[in-house]
Amino acid sequence: MNDWYLGIDLGGSNISAALMDSHGRMRQLKKIKTLAHEGKAQVISRLVELARAVPQEANLKTQNLRAIGLGVPGIIDVPNGVVLYSPNLPGWTRVPIRRALQTALKKPIMIDNDANVAAYGEKWLGAGREVENLVVYTLGTGVGGGIIVEGNIFHGHNHAAGELGHVTILPDGPRCACGNHGCVEALVSGTAIARVAREALKKSSDSLIYELCGRIPDDVTAKHVFQAARKGDALANKIVTQTGQYLGIAVANTINLLNPELVIIGGGVSGAGELLLRPVRAEVKKRALKDSLAATKIVVAQLGDQAGVIGAAGIAMLAKLSRNSNPKRRRTA
Amino acid sequence: MNDWYLGIDLGGSNISAALMDSHGRMRQLKKIKTLAHEGKAQVISRLVELARAVPQEANLKTQNLRAIGLGVPGIIDVPNGVVLYSPNLPGWTRVPIRRALQTALKKPIMIDNDANVAAYGEKWLGAGREVENLVVYTLGTGVGGGIIVEGNIFHGHNHAAGELGHVTILPDGPRCACGNHGCVEALVSGTAIARVAREALKKSSDSLIYELCGRIPDDVTAKHVFQAARKGDALANKIVTQTGQYLGIAVANTINLLNPELVIIGGGVSGAGELLLRPVRAEVKKRALKDSLAATKIVVAQLGDQAGVIGAAGIAMLAKLSRNSNPKRRRTA
Repeated sequence: MNDWYLGIDLGGSNISAALMDSHGRMRQLKKIKTLAHEGKAQVISRLVELARAVPQEANLKTQNLRAIGLGVPGIIDVPNGVVLYSPNLPGWTRVPIRRALQTALKKPIMIDNDANVAAYGEKWLGAGREVENLVVYTLGTGVGGGIIVEGNIFHGHNHAAGELGHVTILPDGPRCACGNHGCVEALVSGTAIARVAREALKKSSDSLIYELCGRIPDDVTAKHVFQAARKGDALANKIVTQTGQYLGIAVANTINLLNPELVIIGGGVSGAGELLLRPVRAEVKKRALKDSLAATKIVVAQLGDQAGVIGAAGIAMLAKLSRNSNPKRRRTA
Repeated sequence: MNDWYLGIDLGGSNISAALMDSHGRMRQLKKIKTLAHEGKAQVISRLVELARAVPQEANLKTQNLRAIGLGVPGIIDVPNGVVLYSPNLPGWTRVPIRRALQTALKKPIMIDNDANVAAYGEKWLGAGREVENLVVYTLGTGVGGGIIVEGNIFHGHNHAAGELGHVTILPDGPRCACGNHGCVEALVSGTAIARVAREALKKSSDSLIYELCGRIPDDVTAKHVFQAARKGDALANKIVTQTGQYLGIAVANTINLLNPELVIIGGGVSGAGELLLRPVRAEVKKRALKDSLAATKIVVAQLGDQAGVIGAAGIAMLAKLSRNSNPKRRRTA
């Protein structure tokens, strides 16, 4: 009698899938390689294969799988279920992925941008439970994000909203992957933190970071910086504080614009926890309007790298009711 | 048989009121002084007097006035109809203005922040007609704003959203009235433009601006700067371009975050028209993500200083249906 939902997180390197029930209990989790270089058709058949395998491995009756949710990196036409463009998936331009999956799997399918889906995961079962208006920053190699308004993913006019990583906070700052200068992503991503550390180490190796990266500045990562900061290294602490200040400017801006109840910081970089959040909060306090600020908490994400699959199962639950599904197929399922 | 709505724009200096029908036709417009220094009770009785006078002067039958909308500068508890705090109205802290007006006027009342209301006016009858997702900047002495999502004012968690003027775009920039540094307001408001001109004139008087302000740099206004720029003055053009660039950073950020269909630039400073919009658009093109940007137009507001009263009449129409009204009073009206 249980209703189950399959969440799939399609990434440039891996595809993860999880079976979840409507109460948020996870039954099965599986991860395979994306092998994006093999091309679009191959990735889609691997997706279909995974979507069939996971319910089977869980001995789930077909009729108990209600719907499938999918997070895809890139620009998504949500109502039509089309991947317009994906920087991480070569050749993915105008791919009607929902139709392809519906034809193969005979289930209602909901797709959305991967960062939006991860944000929705944190709202459903993570740090944002029972909060209706929140913003999620995902700090990794890049900086992604999602805005949740009244419990739903905020999409904007043509489904491109929520690009929290591409807000300019330092007009003459470092160049961003998007072509702009001084974006949040260019200042607080793991890549940005490593770049700052690398440049500093090339000037002076007088830091624990130098030892942690095996005395090869080109191998330094954000993780090395946070490890060194925790041990009291001066350079590392300076970099972490500066990173937190930049992130704090971004968060304060978001608070003044959107007045969310909660700001969640997730992604690999957020593993630094309070070390990073302390300077974030200090900067936000300086810059956010006090009426908005009083209402807003800033916390670390709770779902780690499962936010994507969990959120994807979460949006699958919406597919049941939404026009972003195909009722005819459902009846034949 | 006509339904009429009264919109009231309560400002620090003036109170304006307009009678509008549901098709957006204006029947009567009246403006009185606020005399805020006389105190809260006095201002409220002047409001009540005005709300009675305008329909009478238009020979409107009481039963044809369906509802009243009110825009108030400051932080508003919208669902409860309470002015929490108003920097422009001395002594206005936790004022249950809706209850006061309902008791006196026996009509459903809707209140909201004045910048939100002006944004709603532009959405209803101005540059944003038939657009559902838009952002309105109001550039005057300060910088206000409003965010319209799916046709409605976006309030955020506790009704403080839409502070477009208090987004940091230059972390070490000039101090803002809010206490922060480098806010949009501190860089592109009329006050900011005048400050930049004044400082420049004190260094060198070699500019038409110097003549236009009567050779008294302390008397310079943003208007002088735009006048001089139109006549080809080099300093003035430099100031206008710089102002447009800063505003462009802010607009690009808003586009990347919210992906609106339309950005409207209103308020006195927007009188500069294309002179200001050209550098805004150039900067936005450099900084906005191309998928969002392709969907977004940037235009000048159309309602001038009537956006407030018109928007207030617009939100009055919502009072009819919303819980932000008092159905019992309506029946006794």
